[in-house]
Amino acid sequence: MSTDPAPGRDRSAATRERLLDAAVEAFATSGFAGTTTRDIAARAGMSPAAVYVHHATKEELLFEISRRGHRSAVEVAERASASADDTVERVRAIVSEFSRWHAINSRVGRIVQYEFDALTPEHRAEIAGHRRANEKIMRDALEAGIDAGVLTVSDVKGTALALLSLSIDLVRWYHPEGQITPDQIAKLHGDLAVRMVAAA
Amino acid sequence: MSTDPAPGRDRSAATRERLLDAAVEAFATSGFAGTTTRDIAARAGMSPAAVYVHHATKEELLFEISRRGHRSAVEVAERASASADDTVERVRAIVSEFSRWHAINSRVGRIVQYEFDALTPEHRAEIAGHRRANEKIMRDALEAGIDAGVLTVSDVKGTALALLSLSIDLVRWYHPEGQITPDQIAKLHGDLAVRMVAAA
Repeated sequence: MSTDPAPGRDRSAATRERLLDAAVEAFATSGFAGTTTRDIAARAGMSPAAVYVHHATKEELLFEISRRGHRSAVEVAERASASADDTVERVRAIVSEFSRWHAINSRVGRIVQYEFDALTPEHRAEIAGHRRANEKIMRDALEAGIDAGVLTVSDVKGTALALLSLSIDLVRWYHPEGQITPDQIAKLHGDLAVRMVAAA
Repeated sequence: MSTDPAPGRDRSAATRERLLDAAVEAFATSGFAGTTTRDIAARAGMSPAAVYVHHATKEELLFEISRRGHRSAVEVAERASASADDTVERVRAIVSEFSRWHAINSRVGRIVQYEFDALTPEHRAEIAGHRRANEKIMRDALEAGIDAGVLTVSDVKGTALALLSLSIDLVRWYHPEGQITPDQIAKLHGDLAVRMVAAA
């Protein structure tokens, strides 16, 4: 009776989302090593056997959470980079939107960073690729600004890492119920980033 | 025959150091949750029973590693803060030396940050106190510079956290065998910090 061409796939996709949400809850509460597949199943309202039907090992769920998180952050940085022709404003936009992303997603960000070593070597290699993509977006913006004569940067690689640290380290201390909003963090970090690199 | 007044205590202290070194090795290799007291004992060349004689639970060793790490980092920041009368140079010195500390101690730094949630609530509260002490050193330096008219800072609390992020996020990516030295990191981060806050 459904007009959907693949209701079975949709149900399966919805179950997968439920499992991923449950895994985020469990990892955030008990850490990766302190979580069992049974815990995740219980939080998702499923039997452990049903979890295995979805080929969802604990590590595979962590990898999927990490992959989605990194892809989403890279997309945000790419969009921010493309949003400004002026290279000073490009640096501001990348850092600002990257910090906003980390404030909004601080819980997932913590899991993704702190449990990186729990991934298999193959999965770590893929995630490391996403991290390098983000570093390249930052370095490219700095090099464009140096070429345009509007940025003064002595060490492009080290400065790109320092700019990303402003955003990434947010997950250590940012709490959604705290006093500072993602908008405020985005504005402050964008301003600080420009001061770090703009030509005098 | 020893001239030492308390050789027993010294032996005990040496054993304790061996246990702490072994715990750092084990946590860095397998994570806190993936490490057993038996692993730590084996790395220290001791029996599990001998570890218990030293009242060394896994959590208590993690706490001691965290406490020493934070105390050492706070001392470094305090010394740096006291080393410069000029408030611009004070900011440079604090960030520079804090980054040097995190580069030199990146392995311990990773454990201390990533396993913070594994501490008991009482131990977390003590470590959080050390973190606040570091934030206060940074805020005090910014406020002194604002009063002296040499720094322009719109948000003291947020900027202090951002300056500390430069150093703290080092532990995520810094590797001693990499191309950049602690001296180079210290110089770069000190320069970037001054650009972030110095009056135009």
